[in-house]
Amino acid sequence: MSWRIVGAVTRWEPNARGRLEQAALELFGEHGYEQTTVDDIARRAGLTKRTFFRHFADKREVLFGGADEFKQLFVDGLTGAPASAAPLEAIAVTLEAVADAFHDRRELARRRQRVIMANAELQERELVKLAGVAAALAAALRERGVAEPAASISAETAVAVFRNAFERWVAAADRRELPELIGESLDALRGVTAGRR
Amino acid sequence: MSWRIVGAVTRWEPNARGRLEQAALELFGEHGYEQTTVDDIARRAGLTKRTFFRHFADKREVLFGGADEFKQLFVDGLTGAPASAAPLEAIAVTLEAVADAFHDRRELARRRQRVIMANAELQERELVKLAGVAAALAAALRERGVAEPAASISAETAVAVFRNAFERWVAAADRRELPELIGESLDALRGVTAGRR
Repeated sequence: MSWRIVGAVTRWEPNARGRLEQAALELFGEHGYEQTTVDDIARRAGLTKRTFFRHFADKREVLFGGADEFKQLFVDGLTGAPASAAPLEAIAVTLEAVADAFHDRRELARRRQRVIMANAELQERELVKLAGVAAALAAALRERGVAEPAASISAETAVAVFRNAFERWVAAADRRELPELIGESLDALRGVTAGRR
Repeated sequence: MSWRIVGAVTRWEPNARGRLEQAALELFGEHGYEQTTVDDIARRAGLTKRTFFRHFADKREVLFGGADEFKQLFVDGLTGAPASAAPLEAIAVTLEAVADAFHDRRELARRRQRVIMANAELQERELVKLAGVAAALAAALRERGVAEPAASISAETAVAVFRNAFERWVAAADRRELPELIGESLDALRGVTAGRR
């Protein structure tokens, strides 16, 4: 929720955060991330700069503001796996839950990915984000009683599988949905250790 | 090899690169990466600043100057695996070759790791380096006829296994050598997909 002062009236701007995100991704795509200013984003969204800063610290946060929630999706997803689940089963349950959170965000995810891929600094930030997810997931696995190095290897593997499927999901060429692509990546992982090529 | 002009005489500085690396890692550890200058490094190594810049573009390159060779170790290591090798077997052969290149560098690797872990920017650079290794290894696997997504998943997995073992190798607590730790990480990977906890 967002309120804007208009004269003496405080006005609520419905879904300001979503509109700002949408506007920012459009502009990053049209003019490039570097060339887009917070002013541009606010104007495109039909909101004020002040409203922008109520939701995001800067334009980079439009792309990474959800990093903590993203990490939490993995940790929470893992709690959905029974305590007796083997690592791969726990990973599958976790990734299914994460995929769920993205099911209506494919177009936004595609736009975001294009912006990230065009900028080396943003790619680094994305790697840091994913490393943070793997560390949090490894900690959650240890809490479930998984020993090291299995916990870290499972967590890294889970993130690699997710990223692999996600990158194919946001690529224009593939029309399949994220859960199916995750299933395919998990099969590939099984193949790595099962002696298949 | 390095030559230094002394008066009218060009003098060869034996192992200048190694001495500069050693001096830099000592100083980064003693005073911190940020606080250490190229002047300090050259002085500690008993060499000139000019000699430093003949070997490294800046002090960060002392830590990352070997990134291309590191990547090549993986790609070359893979060529040692028979064409018929299953992915996990190819990964094991690859990582054995990479470990070989580090066998007399444990103390340097420890010092380097401590410097990296103390600096967020250097950690990002390290993640970028490892992502580059995974991408190169995936390309090499595709050239061997491994299809996607198996090639990328195998490559990401190989890098995760290596990093996991390497981090334990440079941790002071573990006295085992890198090949043994890699074997343990590979076993953990097998456990992820084999239903073991």
